[in-house]
Amino acid sequence: MRNLRVSADRIAADIDALAAITDPGRPWTRRAFSPRFDEGRVWIADAFRRAGLSVETDASGNLIGTRAGTVPGAGTIMLGSHSDTVPDGGRFDGVAGVVVALEVARMLAERGIALRHDLAVVDFLAEEVSVFGVSCIGSRGMAGVRPVEWLTREHEGRTLEQAVRDVGGDPTTVAPRTDVRAFLELHIEQGTVLEGSGTDLGLVTAIAGIERIEVVLTGQAGHAGTTPMDRRADALVAAAGLVTDIDAEAGARASRGHFTATVGEFSIEPGAANVIPNRARLLIDARSADRAAMEDFVTWVETRAGRLPEGISGAVRLVSDNYPTRTDAGLLTRLAAAADRVGATHRPMVSGAGHDTAFMARIAPAAMVFVPSRDGRSHCAEEFTENDSIALGAEVLAETVLALDAGE
Amino acid sequence: MRNLRVSADRIAADIDALAAITDPGRPWTRRAFSPRFDEGRVWIADAFRRAGLSVETDASGNLIGTRAGTVPGAGTIMLGSHSDTVPDGGRFDGVAGVVVALEVARMLAERGIALRHDLAVVDFLAEEVSVFGVSCIGSRGMAGVRPVEWLTREHEGRTLEQAVRDVGGDPTTVAPRTDVRAFLELHIEQGTVLEGSGTDLGLVTAIAGIERIEVVLTGQAGHAGTTPMDRRADALVAAAGLVTDIDAEAGARASRGHFTATVGEFSIEPGAANVIPNRARLLIDARSADRAAMEDFVTWVETRAGRLPEGISGAVRLVSDNYPTRTDAGLLTRLAAAADRVGATHRPMVSGAGHDTAFMARIAPAAMVFVPSRDGRSHCAEEFTENDSIALGAEVLAETVLALDAGE
Repeated sequence: MRNLRVSADRIAADIDALAAITDPGRPWTRRAFSPRFDEGRVWIADAFRRAGLSVETDASGNLIGTRAGTVPGAGTIMLGSHSDTVPDGGRFDGVAGVVVALEVARMLAERGIALRHDLAVVDFLAEEVSVFGVSCIGSRGMAGVRPVEWLTREHEGRTLEQAVRDVGGDPTTVAPRTDVRAFLELHIEQGTVLEGSGTDLGLVTAIAGIERIEVVLTGQAGHAGTTPMDRRADALVAAAGLVTDIDAEAGARASRGHFTATVGEFSIEPGAANVIPNRARLLIDARSADRAAMEDFVTWVETRAGRLPEGISGAVRLVSDNYPTRTDAGLLTRLAAAADRVGATHRPMVSGAGHDTAFMARIAPAAMVFVPSRDGRSHCAEEFTENDSIALGAEVLAETVLALDAGE
Repeated sequence: MRNLRVSADRIAADIDALAAITDPGRPWTRRAFSPRFDEGRVWIADAFRRAGLSVETDASGNLIGTRAGTVPGAGTIMLGSHSDTVPDGGRFDGVAGVVVALEVARMLAERGIALRHDLAVVDFLAEEVSVFGVSCIGSRGMAGVRPVEWLTREHEGRTLEQAVRDVGGDPTTVAPRTDVRAFLELHIEQGTVLEGSGTDLGLVTAIAGIERIEVVLTGQAGHAGTTPMDRRADALVAAAGLVTDIDAEAGARASRGHFTATVGEFSIEPGAANVIPNRARLLIDARSADRAAMEDFVTWVETRAGRLPEGISGAVRLVSDNYPTRTDAGLLTRLAAAADRVGATHRPMVSGAGHDTAFMARIAPAAMVFVPSRDGRSHCAEEFTENDSIALGAEVLAETVLALDAGE
C-alpha cells in the first residue's frame, strides 16, 4: 500500500463500527427512519464531533459536520454520501462515502491543515428508496427540488414530514443551499468496470438518466386445453418476444456507449395454470448518459410494441423520466490530476445508478469517484470493496480538496 | 330445425332457469359448495321429480335422478354432467349436459317409452376446481378414485368431508359404482373445431392427458443500472426464450395431432424495477391424447432447460401427470350411427379439457358428445352455444340410449 496521509485503519474501523449497527439477524439493514438508522446517526454525529466538526441537522434532515475555513464567505467544499441502507444490504454502499469524508476532515485536523473554505461532511437523509417509496430525500431537499407533495406521504400512520422532523429536520422551511463551491462523493461502483479493467478509481462523467417504461400487452384468454395453438392470442408469448428483443436491443446500444435496459417487473393475468394469459405487464428500466439515446429508445419501444402478433395489442406509457446528469468538467480535471499525483490509476465512466450527486449537481459543481466493487455485487450481503481501495480514494479526495482550496 | 322427439323449448327454458340462479351481479357464478349451488340443486331435484325420476344424493355428493328399467339387474344407462360453474363463468359448461340428460328422461316419460335398463340422470358434484382447489370430486368419488386425503382439505374452516356431507353425501363410505353399463356426457366443446368445420357434433375419442411441468430458472440478481448488458445472467431473459420455444414446439407438435402447451403461471423474483431478475418460474400445461407424445414433450422440456444462457441454471419438475383417457369404441360407433339416423353431421375429436367422463371411463364404457361453442369461448360470460345445437345433441343422445337399451 502507498504511503497515505489518510488512515486506512481508521476507515476500516469506522466501516466496521457502522456495520455493527444493523437490525438483528438481518445484516446489513439500517433503513432510513428506523430506530437503527437513528442509532447510526448518533454514532456518526459523535465521530464528527471527535473529528472537531460542529454538528447540525439541516432543514432537509441531512446530518452535517462542518469545519470553519479561514476566509469568511469563501464558501463550502462539501464531501459526503449516505448512511442508510436497503433492506438486507451491504456494508459499503453510501457508508464508504460518509466515512471517507469524515476521514478527510480528521486527517486535516490531525495535521493542523487550515482551509480557506469551510469544509462540510454530510450524511444525506434517505438516499435509498425508503418506506416512503422515494429516494434521495435529503439531497433533493438540499437542492430545493424535493416535491412538496412528498411530505404528505404516509407509512404506518407517520407522514414523511413528521419523519423528517423526527430526525431533526424542518422540511417546510427548505431552500436550496447556495454556498457550496464544490461537492465530491466517493461511492462503490456497484458494477464490474473497474474490477474488470484493473483500475483503482472511476471518475464519474455522468450519472445516467433513468426511464421507466411500462408496456401492457393485451391478448385473448382461452382454455389451455381446448384452444388450438394456431388460434391463440397469448399475451405471455408476445411479451416473451418483447423481452428477448429489448435485451438484444440494449446489448447492441451498449456497444456504442453506456446503456442498460432491464425488465425488472413482469406479470401476467389471469395467472391460472389452465388459462391462456390475456394480459402481460412489463416495466422497463432504461438508462443512458445520453438524453438523445434515451428518447430514441422510447421510440424504439413504441415501434416494437406496434409490431405484435395478430390479436395482441400493446400500450406503452412512460412512467418516469429522469434526465442524465453531467458532472462538473473542472472537478473531473482536478480529480484526475490529484489521482495522478497520488499514483492511483483512473478512468472516466458513467454511473448507471442514481446518487445524491445528481441533485447536488443542480446547486454546485459536483463530481463522483468510484471505487471497485467485487463481482459488481451490491445491495446484498456479498457487497465488498477492499479497504485499501477505499483509502486510496480517500487520499485522492483529500488531495483534491487541498487543490480546490488552494485554487489550483 | 329437424323434427325432434326431444323439446328444444324445454331445454332452452331449463338453461335459462339455471342461469337465473347466479350470485348477484356476477353472471354466471354458481360455484360448488356455495348457497347458490344448493339453490341450483333444489331446482334440479325438483325438475328430476317432475320428470318422474326418483331423486337421491349418492355418497360422493352427486345428485341422481333414476327411472327404473323393466328388467331388474340389467344395469344402468347413465347420462349427465355438472351444474357447478367457475367464478364468472358461462351458462352452458356442464349445465347443457345436465339439462340434456333430464330432457332425454322427460321425453321417454312423455312418450311412455319403457327401457330395459335403469336410466340415471346425474349432476356430478364439483367438476370445476372448487374452493377446495381440486376438480371432479363427484365423478372421482363415483369411480372410487377420489384420494381419501382430499377430505381433510379446508376452506374457511370447513373440511371437504363436511362440505360433501352438507350437500347430502357421506364421503367416507364411498365405493366404485358397478352397475353402469354405459355413460354418456354431452358438453360444449370450449374450442373452435366444430364451429370452424361447420360440424354439428364432436364424438370425443379421447380426453387429453394433462401434464403440469414446472421450470425454475436461476440466474444472478444485479443492479439494473450498473451491471453491463454483457455481464448479466437475467433469469427473465432466459425464461422469455424458453416461453418462445415452448410455444413454437407446441405449434409444431399440434400439426401432427392434438397437442397444446400453455405457460399459464409465470413469475419472477425479486420483481423490483431496478433489479435484474434472478429467478423465473414457469408452469407449463401440456396436453395430448397420446401418452408417448406427452412423455416425449417432458423430455424435450428437460433437454431445452439444459441449454440455457451462461450463468443460468434450470430445474424441471413434473408437478402432476394425468394420463389420457380413451373413450369406448363401441359407444362411439353407436353415437355415430345414431347421429347418422338423426341427420346430424359429426366428426371424431379429442377433448383438450378434462371432464367427469374421464373418471366414469374407469368404471364403465363411457363417451362424450361435443356441441359447438361460439368462438370457442368458455368459462366467461361470452360462452354461447345455439339452443338448436344442444337439442340436436340431445336427440342423438336419446337415439343412442334407445339403441343401447335395445342391445343394437
